[in-house]
Amino acid sequence: MAATGEFKRDVNYIDTRITADGSDGYPVEPGRYRLVVARACPWANRAIIVRRLLGLESVLSMGICGPTHDERSWTFDLDPGGRDPVLGIERIQEAYFKRDPHYPRGITVPAIVDIPTGAVVTNDYKQITLDLSTEWTAYHRDGAPDLYPEKLRGEIDEVAELVYRDVNNGVYRCGFASSQRAYEDAYATLFARLDWLSERLSGQRYLVGDTITEADVRLFTTLARFDAVYHGHFKCNRQKLAEQPVLWAYARDLFQTPGFGDTTDFVHIKSHYYEVHRTINPTGIVPVGPDLSGWLTPHGREDLGGRPYGDGTPPGPPPQGEAVPDGHGV
Amino acid sequence: MAATGEFKRDVNYIDTRITADGSDGYPVEPGRYRLVVARACPWANRAIIVRRLLGLESVLSMGICGPTHDERSWTFDLDPGGRDPVLGIERIQEAYFKRDPHYPRGITVPAIVDIPTGAVVTNDYKQITLDLSTEWTAYHRDGAPDLYPEKLRGEIDEVAELVYRDVNNGVYRCGFASSQRAYEDAYATLFARLDWLSERLSGQRYLVGDTITEADVRLFTTLARFDAVYHGHFKCNRQKLAEQPVLWAYARDLFQTPGFGDTTDFVHIKSHYYEVHRTINPTGIVPVGPDLSGWLTPHGREDLGGRPYGDGTPPGPPPQGEAVPDGHGV
Repeated sequence: MAATGEFKRDVNYIDTRITADGSDGYPVEPGRYRLVVARACPWANRAIIVRRLLGLESVLSMGICGPTHDERSWTFDLDPGGRDPVLGIERIQEAYFKRDPHYPRGITVPAIVDIPTGAVVTNDYKQITLDLSTEWTAYHRDGAPDLYPEKLRGEIDEVAELVYRDVNNGVYRCGFASSQRAYEDAYATLFARLDWLSERLSGQRYLVGDTITEADVRLFTTLARFDAVYHGHFKCNRQKLAEQPVLWAYARDLFQTPGFGDTTDFVHIKSHYYEVHRTINPTGIVPVGPDLSGWLTPHGREDLGGRPYGDGTPPGPPPQGEAVPDGHGV
Repeated sequence: MAATGEFKRDVNYIDTRITADGSDGYPVEPGRYRLVVARACPWANRAIIVRRLLGLESVLSMGICGPTHDERSWTFDLDPGGRDPVLGIERIQEAYFKRDPHYPRGITVPAIVDIPTGAVVTNDYKQITLDLSTEWTAYHRDGAPDLYPEKLRGEIDEVAELVYRDVNNGVYRCGFASSQRAYEDAYATLFARLDWLSERLSGQRYLVGDTITEADVRLFTTLARFDAVYHGHFKCNRQKLAEQPVLWAYARDLFQTPGFGDTTDFVHIKSHYYEVHRTINPTGIVPVGPDLSGWLTPHGREDLGGRPYGDGTPPGPPPQGEAVPDGHGV
C-alpha cells in the first residue's frame, strides 16, 4: 500500500511459459499439467473460459479450489478429504513451495502445475490465456475460435491494457484504497473507462473485430462480478452494471454464450469477496442480493451482427464434474 | 444484540409530551422549545419534514447537528465555535444530562429541548411528529396539510407500524445483524414488505387516503436513503430503489414535493453512515455514488390523482439558514 493510500497490485509473477517448442523447459504436452483455479477469482475465471472455448479440457485437467482462503493459501476444500485428487495436496501453496521453498510473493490462482514434479510452472495469468490460444493449438478442439487472431493482436493488447488498468484492477483500486482521495481517483478512472467502453460497444458487438477475442474474456470476468460484488463491497457505485445499458447488454450477450455464463459461479464469487476481505467486511456476512435473473433476459445485441466464434462453433457442455453446481448460477 | 445475532433497537425514549393543554408540564408555546436534529438521521428527517410542511419554523426553532458523532453524542460542529447558538452547548448529550444526570440510554435525535431549562423534553420520535400535527395546530401556517386526519388514524397507524418494523428499522436489522441467519431473515422481511408496498402503491398515489400523511413521511425518509446507503452499506441489495419501479416513482413524487427533497441532505446522509459505523465500514471511506440525478426525473404519479396537500397548499421555501447547502442535494 503506497503512502497515498493507493492500492498497488504486486505484478511479479512466475513467468515461465509452457510453449509448443518447450523453450522454457516445459513443452506443451497432453496430460502433463494441471490448471488450478478458483471459480471466484476473475483472473482464474479467464483461464477457465479460454480452456473451455478452446476445448482443452481433456489435455489440461483442472483443479478447483474453494471460494475462501486464509492468509496462507487457496485450498482444495471442495475435494474429498480436502485434497486435490491429482496433485495430492491440500493447499496450492505446497505447489509453489515445490517450485521455490522460499517463494516470497502472493499465492495466486490461476496457476499451472507440472504434475510429475508437483511444482507450479506459471501463475502469470495474462500470459496463461494467450499461451492456451497460441501454443496449445495442436490440441484445440475442432471449431475452436481464434481468440487472439494475429492481425488483431495489437488492438487487443491495447484495449486489454486499458481495461486491465482501469477496470479489472480498477475495481480493486476502489475497494482497497485506504484514503478517500485514492478511492475517489480510482472511482473516477473506473467510470470514465466504463463510459468509454459503453461508447465503443454501442456500435459493435465485441471489443475488437467482429468475433469474441481475448479482450472480451478479460472484460467479461470483471463485469460478471460488478453488481454481485464490486458495486457494494468495493464502492463502485455510480451505477450498477444493470443501469449501464450498453455494457449490461454486452455482458448479458457474453453470459448467454456457451463458455461464459456457464463458468460463472455467483455463490463462490460472493462468498470469496465478502468472507475473505474482513478488513472491508468485518462481519463476513454475505449479501443475499442482487437478484440475478436479469442475466438471462434478451440483450438484442445480435442486431449488431458479429460472429461469436468466428469460423468456429460453440463448445459442448462442460465435462462431468466441471459444471458450475446447481444453484450457483442464475 | 441478541444471541441470535439479531439487531434489537432500544425503543425506550423519554416520552414526556409537549401538548396544547400542558398536561405533562410542557405546554405548546411559541419560542420556548428547540428541535434538535441531524439531517443525516431518518428519524430526525421526519420531524424536519413535518415541521416544514406545517409551517412551524417561526415558533419551534431548529438546531442542526453535524453528520458524524462519536460514542458520546451528536455534536453542533456545524455551528460557529461548535456550539448551538440558542442552547449554548456543544453536544446534545448535555441537554440529556440536564434532564437526567445519569441518563442511561442512547443520545438520539430528534430531541426537543426546553430552552429555559436547557433540558430535553422528549426524544420519542414517533410521538414528536404526531404532536406537531395534533397539538401545535394553533400555530400551523395557513394552508398547512392535515398529516394525521382523524378518520384515517387507524389505517395510518397500522401501515406505519408495518413500515417501521420491516422497513424503517428493517434496514438496520439487515445492516447490523451479526449472523448470516439474522441478516437473511431481515432481508427477506424487508423485501417482502417492499413488494407489499409496491403492490399497494401501484394503484394509489399515497399510502393512506389520497393526500400526503404521516405514513408517507415515515416511509420517505427510509426510501431517500436506500440507494445512497442501505443498498450497499446495509446489504439491502436485492434491487436498488431505482430498480423497483412503483416505489421509485412514489419516492420521486414525494422528493419533488416541497418539504421532502428540499430537506434531504445526501452529503450528510452518506457521511453519517459510512463514517460512523466503523464496525461495518472500517476505512470510513464514503462512496462517491450513486448518481442522484434520477431523483428529478418525471415520475408520472399525477395520473393516479391524489391531492398532495389535501385542501392545503405547499410550504414556501425554507427559512434562511435552514436550506440544505448547495451541492448536498441532487
